[in-house]
Amino acid sequence: MGCCHYHPVGEGCDNAFTVDTSRVTFGRGCLAEVGDRARALGMKRVALFSDARVARLPFFEKVRQSLLAAGLDVVVYTDVHIEPTDQSFLAAARFATEVQPDGYVSLGGGSVIDTCKGANLYATYPADFLTYVNAPVGAGKPVPGPLKPHIACPTTSGTGSEVTGITIFDLLSISAKTGIASPALRPTEALIDPDCTTSLPGEVVAASGLDVLSHALESYTARPYVRRPAPARPSLRPMSQGANPWSDLGCREALRLMGLYLERAVKDASDSEAREQTMWAATLAGIAFGNAGVHAPHGMAYAVAGLVRDFRPSGYPDGEPLVPHGMAVIVNAPAVFRYTAEVSPERHLEAAQGLGADTRGATPKDAGEVLAREVIRIMRAVGMPNGLGGVGYTEADVAALTEGAFPQQRLLQNAPREMSRPVLTDLFRHALSYW
Amino acid sequence: MGCCHYHPVGEGCDNAFTVDTSRVTFGRGCLAEVGDRARALGMKRVALFSDARVARLPFFEKVRQSLLAAGLDVVVYTDVHIEPTDQSFLAAARFATEVQPDGYVSLGGGSVIDTCKGANLYATYPADFLTYVNAPVGAGKPVPGPLKPHIACPTTSGTGSEVTGITIFDLLSISAKTGIASPALRPTEALIDPDCTTSLPGEVVAASGLDVLSHALESYTARPYVRRPAPARPSLRPMSQGANPWSDLGCREALRLMGLYLERAVKDASDSEAREQTMWAATLAGIAFGNAGVHAPHGMAYAVAGLVRDFRPSGYPDGEPLVPHGMAVIVNAPAVFRYTAEVSPERHLEAAQGLGADTRGATPKDAGEVLAREVIRIMRAVGMPNGLGGVGYTEADVAALTEGAFPQQRLLQNAPREMSRPVLTDLFRHALSYW
Ligand SMILES: NC(=O)c1ccc[n+]([C@@H]2O[C@H](COP(=O)([O-])OP(=O)(O)OC[C@H]3O[C@@H](n4cnc5c(N)ncnc54)[C@H](O)[C@@H]3O)[C@@H](O)[C@H]2O)c1
Ligand SMILES: NC(=O)c1ccc[n+]([C@@H]2O[C@H](COP(=O)([O-])OP(=O)(O)OC[C@H]3O[C@@H](n4cnc5c(N)ncnc54)[C@H](O)[C@@H]3O)[C@@H](O)[C@H]2O)c1
Ligand SMILES: [Zn+2]
Ligand SMILES: [Zn+2]
Ligand SMILES: [Zn+2]
Ligand SMILES: [Zn+2]
Repeated sequence: MGCCHYHPVGEGCDNAFTVDTSRVTFGRGCLAEVGDRARALGMKRVALFSDARVARLPFFEKVRQSLLAAGLDVVVYTDVHIEPTDQSFLAAARFATEVQPDGYVSLGGGSVIDTCKGANLYATYPADFLTYVNAPVGAGKPVPGPLKPHIACPTTSGTGSEVTGITIFDLLSISAKTGIASPALRPTEALIDPDCTTSLPGEVVAASGLDVLSHALESYTARPYVRRPAPARPSLRPMSQGANPWSDLGCREALRLMGLYLERAVKDASDSEAREQTMWAATLAGIAFGNAGVHAPHGMAYAVAGLVRDFRPSGYPDGEPLVPHGMAVIVNAPAVFRYTAEVSPERHLEAAQGLGADTRGATPKDAGEVLAREVIRIMRAVGMPNGLGGVGYTEADVAALTEGAFPQQRLLQNAPREMSRPVLTDLFRHALSYW
Repeated sequence: MGCCHYHPVGEGCDNAFTVDTSRVTFGRGCLAEVGDRARALGMKRVALFSDARVARLPFFEKVRQSLLAAGLDVVVYTDVHIEPTDQSFLAAARFATEVQPDGYVSLGGGSVIDTCKGANLYATYPADFLTYVNAPVGAGKPVPGPLKPHIACPTTSGTGSEVTGITIFDLLSISAKTGIASPALRPTEALIDPDCTTSLPGEVVAASGLDVLSHALESYTARPYVRRPAPARPSLRPMSQGANPWSDLGCREALRLMGLYLERAVKDASDSEAREQTMWAATLAGIAFGNAGVHAPHGMAYAVAGLVRDFRPSGYPDGEPLVPHGMAVIVNAPAVFRYTAEVSPERHLEAAQGLGADTRGATPKDAGEVLAREVIRIMRAVGMPNGLGGVGYTEADVAALTEGAFPQQRLLQNAPREMSRPVLTDLFRHALSYW
């Protein structure tokens, strides 16, 4: 463990890593700080973002009142789409362009925080929608400068979006998720109040918790930064820079906490210790993956979510079919780790051990299997579907899933082993069913 | 471990913690990035700070060339005083006021980085020297706004000043160290190149390494944030907020690394792995204590350093007597931990274990002794003086030391147990000699 696993630097590869995060405030009841913090950031006219369900919860009113009590002008947007799309981003951006806030507060899960990042971006630097979207899907142009201050208040224990420079949406025209990645998108502050999580349905805790688990597992097993080609200029070093000693720290702690608390948090909404620790793990994993990057399970998930036909998970809004992000990710994870373990068996074993698996007697050859089984055990314990089959896919979809995942090169190149089309096909096939 | 040790919140105490850090770049050779990074921060005219010894080392020229190659105008200041004073701060501020740089690069140990922070502050917001100095010694006025961008490049594996909002100096009129603490002082970026450390004398690695050790031990054992009275407004939460789950992470990893590598790093300048890991531990401990705060060993050290008579350590510049900061801190540490362990024996034992001590069979009652002995063992192994006696103090100085330390209330109140005058006297007496 630690940096000494990072020698030597590969030929032409990077010799340093760069890490950054939002200011983080964590604690029960800290949503009451939002007004004072918004004012301290110089905000006067605040756009408060949320989704329709969260906007009906008592803490939404608490946030609005705190902002008003600080003497701020508040405009509210609650039309965020769960698992947002380019269309829903554009609607939010139109709103922001119209009301011209000088600061943003987002209160909700990743769907809300990501939509708020998008609105802030397009209202501050108007452009064709594809301008900033990750290449090759979009033009991948850099964000021209800093955005308006943004205080992100997560209400799920999941994405870590409150501390990352990433925003994700479904590009309807290609039926696949993609995103925008820029340090400029990273919220100025994250305000994380575990009290929010008491109203979370167990199903949402489960899906978003497995997202956290996979953030930590993927960052921990990502291609090490010393194996990534050096950037043209050091200031262009990407956020998806690969595993590094800083992200490793957050990953290990997140894995330990998820191993101890996730099942408890899913099963009992009144287990406030478990829900609090799961929330803290989500932020730690966000800080880690925001500075290391995820890889194949996420790259594959963007196709799994985008191609959904008629899967309607309980615990999520009725209406449109959707595969919640964490679910779309975790169904790929065991197949991926069985394949990647060969490159860094110690890390795969350490990760399994961090989660609580008994790894005594395990040899490097067992590493992929040991980690895959531990992930499967947790999936079953928290009621996840049995692989891709469980969310409605069959062998006949594997080709389309491969085509959907392959363009996610930013993620796939962060994997420790080659992710060619044939490899992806093979992984999707192995992910169809696990038990 | 983790947050669950932080319940319940004490009456009238804080219910959340807030953490922040500089952008951090770490890696062998990364000093070559300084020009590109300075330009990316918008700098055009850079003040490059160093001390006379460091300015003669090859990496100083490397930094200057990198800045010039990026097309920047560079003005150099190398008159930094080792263990700076109010006088040497003022001289640096006069320089900065005269040349009016739009950005700063500091290259050196804590003495250089701290002086650069001071110069940036007084050149940007001119004021009487005591205006911003911590109360009760100074007026403790808040810094009015952001400073000019500052890239801090540490060349010792010690202070962590590259990531903290703290600057320390010797106030000659009262013969005691004091400082200025403000988030505005935190460098914009830290650029940490372990290659710098090959030229460090073993004595400097030892003293600055024990500073690191004590940053981690003090932050880990500091009064927990849930026992600190809540601030008047949340945005005024102090950086010295007490132990919290975020700082704990950095502390534990720093302790583990120092236990493994410090002795090797002191004894063999060519042991590049040990010097690299010690450097990384220094930054992690800086991030931790910059968001938790240190306590009595540091508070007492300010008197130990300020009242020095004729101690002249080898490895440091000839001339004036001085007690290097890390040495002034660590001579107090065993006495302090013997006293504080009663409040949180598990944490004291965990810390000793993190350093590598065998804690099997140790009971809570042994915790202070176990940790004190482990610290003493390391002090002896790296050639530290035998307590206060070893740096020239006797029983006759205890009263003056107490008077010197008592005004350091910002630090003393961050201790887990009461630090009244009689307690300090007792601790100084016990710190006179350890073996
Ligand atoms: N930006 C990033 O770094 C990042 C990382 C991972 C995932 N994501 C994205 O985030 C989105 C998923 O976000 P998520 O998992 O946080 O869920 P979500 O925001 O989609 O919310 C899921 C459901 O939970 C409800 N909900 C949220 N908080 C609640 C609460 N406290 N009580 C009751 N109900 C609550 C919502 O109304 C919604 O119905 C996806 O679009 C995914 O692609 C982004
Ligand atoms: N701001 C903070 O958060 C903070 C924290 C702890 C200590 N401090 C302060 O920092 C100062 C101590 O700093 P320090 O321990 O880093 O040492 P230092 O800056 O005082 O340097 C010690 C000696 O080492 C030399 N040196 C530095 N780098 C070298 C290299 N790479 N090769 C050869 N020689 C080198 C210096 O020239 C000097 O002679 C004290 O004033 C202390 O109070 C500040
Ligand atoms: Zn190494
Ligand atoms: Zn995710
Ligand atoms: Zn708890
Ligand atoms: Zn120190």
